[in-house]
Amino acid sequence: MKNNSWILKGNICYSKSEKELSVTEQGYLVCCQGISQGVFRQIPEKFRGLPVTDYGDALIFPGMTDLHLHAPQYSFAGLGMDLELLDWLNTHTFPEESRYESMEYARKAYKTFAEDLKRSPTTRAVIFATVHVPATRLLMDEMEKTCLKTCVGKVNMDQNCPDSLREVDAKASLLDTERWLLDTMDAYENVRPILTPRFAPTCSAALLEGLGRLGQKYNLPVQTHLSENQSEIAWVKELYPWSSFYGDVYDRFGLFGAGEEGRAPAVMAHCVYSAPEEVMRMKENRVYIAHCPQSNMNLSSGIAPIRSYMEQGLFIGLGTDLAGGANMSMFRCITDAIAVSKLYWRLVDQGAKPLTLEEGFYLATAGGGSFFGKVGSFEQGFEADVLVGDDLEIPRLDGWGIRERLARFLYLSGEKGRLIGKYVAGVQILL
Amino acid sequence: MKNNSWILKGNICYSKSEKELSVTEQGYLVCCQGISQGVFRQIPEKFRGLPVTDYGDALIFPGMTDLHLHAPQYSFAGLGMDLELLDWLNTHTFPEESRYESMEYARKAYKTFAEDLKRSPTTRAVIFATVHVPATRLLMDEMEKTCLKTCVGKVNMDQNCPDSLREVDAKASLLDTERWLLDTMDAYENVRPILTPRFAPTCSAALLEGLGRLGQKYNLPVQTHLSENQSEIAWVKELYPWSSFYGDVYDRFGLFGAGEEGRAPAVMAHCVYSAPEEVMRMKENRVYIAHCPQSNMNLSSGIAPIRSYMEQGLFIGLGTDLAGGANMSMFRCITDAIAVSKLYWRLVDQGAKPLTLEEGFYLATAGGGSFFGKVGSFEQGFEADVLVGDDLEIPRLDGWGIRERLARFLYLSGEKGRLIGKYVAGVQILL
Repeated sequence: MKNNSWILKGNICYSKSEKELSVTEQGYLVCCQGISQGVFRQIPEKFRGLPVTDYGDALIFPGMTDLHLHAPQYSFAGLGMDLELLDWLNTHTFPEESRYESMEYARKAYKTFAEDLKRSPTTRAVIFATVHVPATRLLMDEMEKTCLKTCVGKVNMDQNCPDSLREVDAKASLLDTERWLLDTMDAYENVRPILTPRFAPTCSAALLEGLGRLGQKYNLPVQTHLSENQSEIAWVKELYPWSSFYGDVYDRFGLFGAGEEGRAPAVMAHCVYSAPEEVMRMKENRVYIAHCPQSNMNLSSGIAPIRSYMEQGLFIGLGTDLAGGANMSMFRCITDAIAVSKLYWRLVDQGAKPLTLEEGFYLATAGGGSFFGKVGSFEQGFEADVLVGDDLEIPRLDGWGIRERLARFLYLSGEKGRLIGKYVAGVQILL
Repeated sequence: MKNNSWILKGNICYSKSEKELSVTEQGYLVCCQGISQGVFRQIPEKFRGLPVTDYGDALIFPGMTDLHLHAPQYSFAGLGMDLELLDWLNTHTFPEESRYESMEYARKAYKTFAEDLKRSPTTRAVIFATVHVPATRLLMDEMEKTCLKTCVGKVNMDQNCPDSLREVDAKASLLDTERWLLDTMDAYENVRPILTPRFAPTCSAALLEGLGRLGQKYNLPVQTHLSENQSEIAWVKELYPWSSFYGDVYDRFGLFGAGEEGRAPAVMAHCVYSAPEEVMRMKENRVYIAHCPQSNMNLSSGIAPIRSYMEQGLFIGLGTDLAGGANMSMFRCITDAIAVSKLYWRLVDQGAKPLTLEEGFYLATAGGGSFFGKVGSFEQGFEADVLVGDDLEIPRLDGWGIRERLARFLYLSGEKGRLIGKYVAGVQILL
């Protein structure tokens, strides 16, 4: 039996809303069978029997959701960060992804990836693998062991990519994909398959159509890339001249979310240059935006207008986009999101107020977490994804509260501070 | 007697030029009395007697110069990074700097700062203290102990700042400053005083004039801020209506460098919006630019046109600008410089090619290092500032060379990799 009913004691904070942090000094977070029962100043009578872990003066806050990252690219993170997108793809990404045809190679690389993600602030993630089914299965096996909750996608591409990564044709790709789906849909406790057309230019209409059918048949979530840069958008218009906007291509084939609750959602990485109609459709279809600030800098894409998306009530989370982003830490991702929002305000649109710490924290926890359901908060009824941060070696000034300590922990954790506890859906992950 | 004659063995790299990295696998770096004798594939006959430290497969590269940082702000690094400049100054910076009137407070804070800087990739630094002479002395004492080579400045300001930080008047400020200079000029082996008018708006003409006289009298280097944001530039024009451009104010008072070699240089932080005449004057006067990419994001300043400055042959180094920048690591500073140069290219000027890894690395080593003389390279005759990086836990792919390993070490050192050796002017610093 899992030990997923417990109480944690410490300085607890989580997002009450986009604008507001809930802070309870020396409070109790109660979890029953993996579900948060809320945060209390005293342990309520009915929970008195649960085991209490006292984390002393540490910070306790929700786990983070990385809405977009490429597992096979982790092995070269940090390389080619001075190249432009296409050079980077050809020099590093495509050659590296080709190596995952070898299971021996995949085993080594994915083991490192999974171990490092387990130790990171990420508790949930939506992950690209490669086109290779065996290596994707192996990645799912590795992710399962971490106890993190993840969606993992075998990539589909049948055009406009190197021979070594191109699937024979749409039919073969779809057959492979359906077989993989059937093998994996109920095979794991922590991992779910997700449809993963790489992006419109590398997928034929026949492939997209088939993927749409699979999505409908099995009610599957979808992940892909959208409106990352202008030349990509122009290319999509060339390939799919009938489309009203880039996302319309996905939408036409049923790969762009759906208005109804209960339908598996779609997550679109980047959305740096989404046209107004595209934004409207995303809203109607409850599409998630994975905002990847570091990647958008590193690959010279630009800065996504996140303030505007937030004001329009879209669903937004953050993504590291490994290895367009070089760093796996979602703490870094929060601080990058705040930083680029300031440059956006200064250089692009003085009407777009920069993100606050509260907002960046919200996007990384409750914002992206909702892709997985009730995730990313400690409100009653949410799955208990928890990080425990020891900031003892980060000096404090008199008069600071938990908010200040949290800010320093997020900004300095590359240099100081460390995670000492991590729980996903109530299950403790050994760090 | 100092042990500053030695040989280090390992994978050695340094900037041959802005564009080119010199790489010697399993080479020997020879240092005699603190001065590099060059890098060799075999130990030359005449150096055979020197002690050899074999760092195995580690990376050996030049120490980094942080051309601009505020020691008293380190205590709140990471706070208020979602505020604008003025709110940030009033909420965090000024109240915090006021505390350094207390020696007890300064002792604690500066000890932490010095210890952390010692462990960082920084080997040389140009540092702001506060207006307080006793605390500044204390900071100099602490820096002396680290064996890092630093310039430390007592700040001058006699107007446009909170009462708690304003010096009585120009005369009092100048008297204090000269006394401090006489006390410190020859007091240390590793620390030199540097003139530090905070920036034009907080200094009266009488103060600037007096500082200029002191600078000339003692041939002192100067550090201050320049053209960080547009409203600051407008303010300076208002305060000094006779000035042709912001830097002209400093220049009029002899605080803006000098054309001749041998004269102590001036370093100007930021230069985000320097007018063409200002740039020309900087070139004539051999003024250093401290490019602070993270701070310029965090404080919504913008992005400095570094490519243009490099093409015009200006003197440029990098600065963390703690705590406008939240992170002390110069590795992070290099990667930030590359990242913002890509946004500058995308959002501001498509003619400004982004920085390469080689260029970012050059700026942090040889570029900024030259402020201290022959520093930042392993060419024969340079002072031997050395970092030794252990990247064993950063996985490598077949076919990668030292350049790829160096890139990964710089990008991932927040997450993986560690410094195992550090030398300044040939003296080993215990980490």
